[in-house]
Amino acid sequence: MTLTIGLDVGGTKVAAGVVDDRGRVLEKLKRSTPAADPEHTAQVIAAVINELSGRHPVAAVGLGAAGFVNETRTSVMFAPNLAWRDEPLRKRVEDQVGLPVIMENDANAGAWAELRFGSARGFRDVVMLAIGTGIGCGIVLDGRLYRGRWGMAGEPGHYRVVPDGRLCGCGNRGCLEQYASGSALVAEAREFAARRPAGAIRLLQLAGGSPEGIDGPQVTRAAREGDPAALRCFQTVGSWLGQGLADLAAIMDPACFVIGGGVSEAGDLLVAPARAAYERALTGRGHREYADIRLAHFGADAGLVGAADLARSA
Amino acid sequence: MTLTIGLDVGGTKVAAGVVDDRGRVLEKLKRSTPAADPEHTAQVIAAVINELSGRHPVAAVGLGAAGFVNETRTSVMFAPNLAWRDEPLRKRVEDQVGLPVIMENDANAGAWAELRFGSARGFRDVVMLAIGTGIGCGIVLDGRLYRGRWGMAGEPGHYRVVPDGRLCGCGNRGCLEQYASGSALVAEAREFAARRPAGAIRLLQLAGGSPEGIDGPQVTRAAREGDPAALRCFQTVGSWLGQGLADLAAIMDPACFVIGGGVSEAGDLLVAPARAAYERALTGRGHREYADIRLAHFGADAGLVGAADLARSA
Repeated sequence: MTLTIGLDVGGTKVAAGVVDDRGRVLEKLKRSTPAADPEHTAQVIAAVINELSGRHPVAAVGLGAAGFVNETRTSVMFAPNLAWRDEPLRKRVEDQVGLPVIMENDANAGAWAELRFGSARGFRDVVMLAIGTGIGCGIVLDGRLYRGRWGMAGEPGHYRVVPDGRLCGCGNRGCLEQYASGSALVAEAREFAARRPAGAIRLLQLAGGSPEGIDGPQVTRAAREGDPAALRCFQTVGSWLGQGLADLAAIMDPACFVIGGGVSEAGDLLVAPARAAYERALTGRGHREYADIRLAHFGADAGLVGAADLARSA
Repeated sequence: MTLTIGLDVGGTKVAAGVVDDRGRVLEKLKRSTPAADPEHTAQVIAAVINELSGRHPVAAVGLGAAGFVNETRTSVMFAPNLAWRDEPLRKRVEDQVGLPVIMENDANAGAWAELRFGSARGFRDVVMLAIGTGIGCGIVLDGRLYRGRWGMAGEPGHYRVVPDGRLCGCGNRGCLEQYASGSALVAEAREFAARRPAGAIRLLQLAGGSPEGIDGPQVTRAAREGDPAALRCFQTVGSWLGQGLADLAAIMDPACFVIGGGVSEAGDLLVAPARAAYERALTGRGHREYADIRLAHFGADAGLVGAADLARSA
């Protein structure tokens, strides 16, 4: 049995784990990410690797990085939440750890974990969407990670769903991410509470009285309690997500969609309206199969488990 | 040198050609498609194959079919313009010709022709869009045709670009095809001529005086002459196409887009505004490469040349 180390390096924390060949995490460490300092970030990464490899006989390391990874998988070209700009992360880490290192986009690594050990086992064409603050995505086609010509594939959060729509962090207007993400869920709830406070008593109670205090977990909690305002927010955001799945199915016809990320912890509150909207919107419905829509098996560990497995098979 | 026969079977005609291993068509035949009668359609297909194979030493046959081809490439599940419904076309033809037969969706076959012998030579990740009455599409990823789990991939004409938008033949509203196709071009020109006849004198002249008489080639001709109303129509439709390319690049990050189909005969009238809109709309611009946008090399022969080559390599 070969052990490898997988890491998920995001804008706030570095999570690392020793993973076996069945996707089980034997030991896990977390550190804060010094996101503004690429050299220091690499040192933190190397330190957790060296700590774990001192205690376990590991053969290789997989880095899941929250950024645009180039096509040779050596550098992070750009990251929205870290100071990486053309950062040669793979070599910088490899030089400090004495183990072979591979690198992959974090959402791709998460999709790979679901394919190998999670909800998408047995499928060959899978689109995983991680619904968090934004929308992450990993695409597996014909059983292999699909990265695109320049490693940029899998950003369906940034195709346009509404002409002249809401302003997106990417600079465009009307991106899917502005309608079908955790940010969209919170924005819906805050707007509702600001305009119809009498209908949002429970949400405002949870948020300490102010619409601006409402956060995602509060919306999920209120919806679980049956609060109509919170349920309405999930209905809206879930329907947009389902439309997005129908759009992606028109283009890629996957066998399975996996829905992960923080918002997916709401389970059917999100997935039921998404599935209903998907089945209403799919082009050619009646003459084709519906892809499965499944909740992710892995939570926060998806990226590190997938990165560890990619390191093993490299 | 191996010769193969390629066919492009559409709703109005069957085109067949003997093709060599460099994609050259040595002889070509055309017949009308008896589209309402699947058995008769197969007989017409077999007859042209037998005629051509009587005159040339051919090794195999490739059928490009205008319909949804199933994942085993044996049946056409559904065709909008022919009476095919779960039609076992491959076997029906093979039984009548004594040659191995492969089958592929016509747009996929066209994309393959461009990859092997046309505008997309040397690329591995290519999206071809055939802009005609509707929008056909073939996708090549990692150097292979990508068909999706059920053979339905590559219908970007039917993802939604406008919520509650124009009604589409697929039953949905707001599909890209209603904004970036030849039908959209003609609809724009007719609407313009009906509402502002004084600004559409040339278009109305070409169409015999009636807005409803305007067709696509007339819009292209007027635009080539510099007619402002016709140019405005290409600007509108080309910009929608460019937005579509940006959306597809967000999802698939291809190296190259190939623009074919009847409307692409307008050349830069269509492609220049598409390229401009694409470069304005691409998410992450400034941190990534722009895919090439190229006109198709093959015109009407793309499907049969591609089908013939797929038969050779099968």
